[in-house]
Amino acid sequence: MNTVILSPKDQRERFRNNLEVRNTSGLCEGFMQANLVILPKEYAFDFLLFSKRNHKPCPIVDVLEPGAVKPKVADADIRTDIPKYRVFKSGELADETTDIKSYWRDDFVSFLIGCSFTFERALNEAGIEMLHQKEHKGVAVYITNIECKKAGIFHGPMVVSMRPIKKSEIVKSIEITSRYSHTHGAPVHVGDASLIGIKDISKPDYGDFIPYDENEYVPVFWACGVTPQAVALQSKPSIMITHAPGYMFISDKREI
Amino acid sequence: MNTVILSPKDQRERFRNNLEVRNTSGLCEGFMQANLVILPKEYAFDFLLFSKRNHKPCPIVDVLEPGAVKPKVADADIRTDIPKYRVFKSGELADETTDIKSYWRDDFVSFLIGCSFTFERALNEAGIEMLHQKEHKGVAVYITNIECKKAGIFHGPMVVSMRPIKKSEIVKSIEITSRYSHTHGAPVHVGDASLIGIKDISKPDYGDFIPYDENEYVPVFWACGVTPQAVALQSKPSIMITHAPGYMFISDKREI
Repeated sequence: MNTVILSPKDQRERFRNNLEVRNTSGLCEGFMQANLVILPKEYAFDFLLFSKRNHKPCPIVDVLEPGAVKPKVADADIRTDIPKYRVFKSGELADETTDIKSYWRDDFVSFLIGCSFTFERALNEAGIEMLHQKEHKGVAVYITNIECKKAGIFHGPMVVSMRPIKKSEIVKSIEITSRYSHTHGAPVHVGDASLIGIKDISKPDYGDFIPYDENEYVPVFWACGVTPQAVALQSKPSIMITHAPGYMFISDKREI
Repeated sequence: MNTVILSPKDQRERFRNNLEVRNTSGLCEGFMQANLVILPKEYAFDFLLFSKRNHKPCPIVDVLEPGAVKPKVADADIRTDIPKYRVFKSGELADETTDIKSYWRDDFVSFLIGCSFTFERALNEAGIEMLHQKEHKGVAVYITNIECKKAGIFHGPMVVSMRPIKKSEIVKSIEITSRYSHTHGAPVHVGDASLIGIKDISKPDYGDFIPYDENEYVPVFWACGVTPQAVALQSKPSIMITHAPGYMFISDKREI
């Protein structure tokens, strides 16, 4: 664990200079973290429209103009200040790197997308514990049969994260997360996983399943920021760059 | 006044067949009406990003794919079902017409933008009267010194509509309209017009000024759907098509 809490700027500088390469969970507490999707301008309208039509899985918090490298939400360089990036070519992983300067093009449009760290913190503050946090595991993530609303070349199923919530805290969990529309908002489903096309809840597509007592807990499903990446990859853009899972962009913006 | 209340579909059919050419104020009550902006695809990303960054003046309610003529919010043809259109070339009015089929191109992207009719109705239902309605005039509209957030080629000042509201009803007016984020939301300013760059409140840039008793009323300013048109025109796109002021698109969607 970090003993010194760095400012977002100092933490990003460590990433930029490759003094540290780690996932950003728990770093710079209280500051908004974000998912990253970079696409060439030719795909940018379709992707922005997709995010507008699918606000829960794809809540945009910042869009950089074509070629721009400095976000509005942080005094940062989008090409260097994330600890780890993934480069996809025609839908296939082509590189994992700590710096994308060599890939950069003037027609690249960067999208920053809200992440569930914000609402998890809000749930914690309301006294709602999350099992995966207690066990220091990744949250369980599933591909559902909920179709996203299509936009241009982008279409595909919604990806969700699941957190077991105590039956007595379900309403409170929904109330709280519904206030965070820029970080996925209210759940998309509560209870029976088969209704959204999840065959075996104990086998998530990503992350870890934490066993829970069904008498006490109910699975609650939130739209997940992995969705836009998954959907974008399906349509095989010539090039697309994202953060590596868990290696998020840390902004200068306070979580609200 | 209409004696028979037509369904949106029947009313649009009358427009489509040019059986009627009139402004849509008061028509198909309870159904959402919308502003229209049509731009070639090359401008679509910038415009969508502009609307995202300037949600109050530019609340998008529907975006059609390039070349598509059927909105999601109505069983309609965007090229014929508005009573009157305006065609602008390089920022200049080139034509006013009841049908844009002859202008249509496969790369045209149509944006439908929320309109204040919805929140005016909500205010009415809460017992808040609007002076311009009582006098059957147009609402007063002003160009302000509030700069919109730039996106690509699109930038310029926010345009606002002003309604004098009774001092005792200001809080209620703000509470009510803040619920209607898809139709401009809460006001952008209350009171002293000079603070937002309006030199003479009795001389609106568009519409009619209705004199009011300053002891009883305060001017309240809402972001106006004219903004995106005004801003888009400033940047002189090669072609842009809009509805004619007051001649709105009537959707099949209930106002909520």
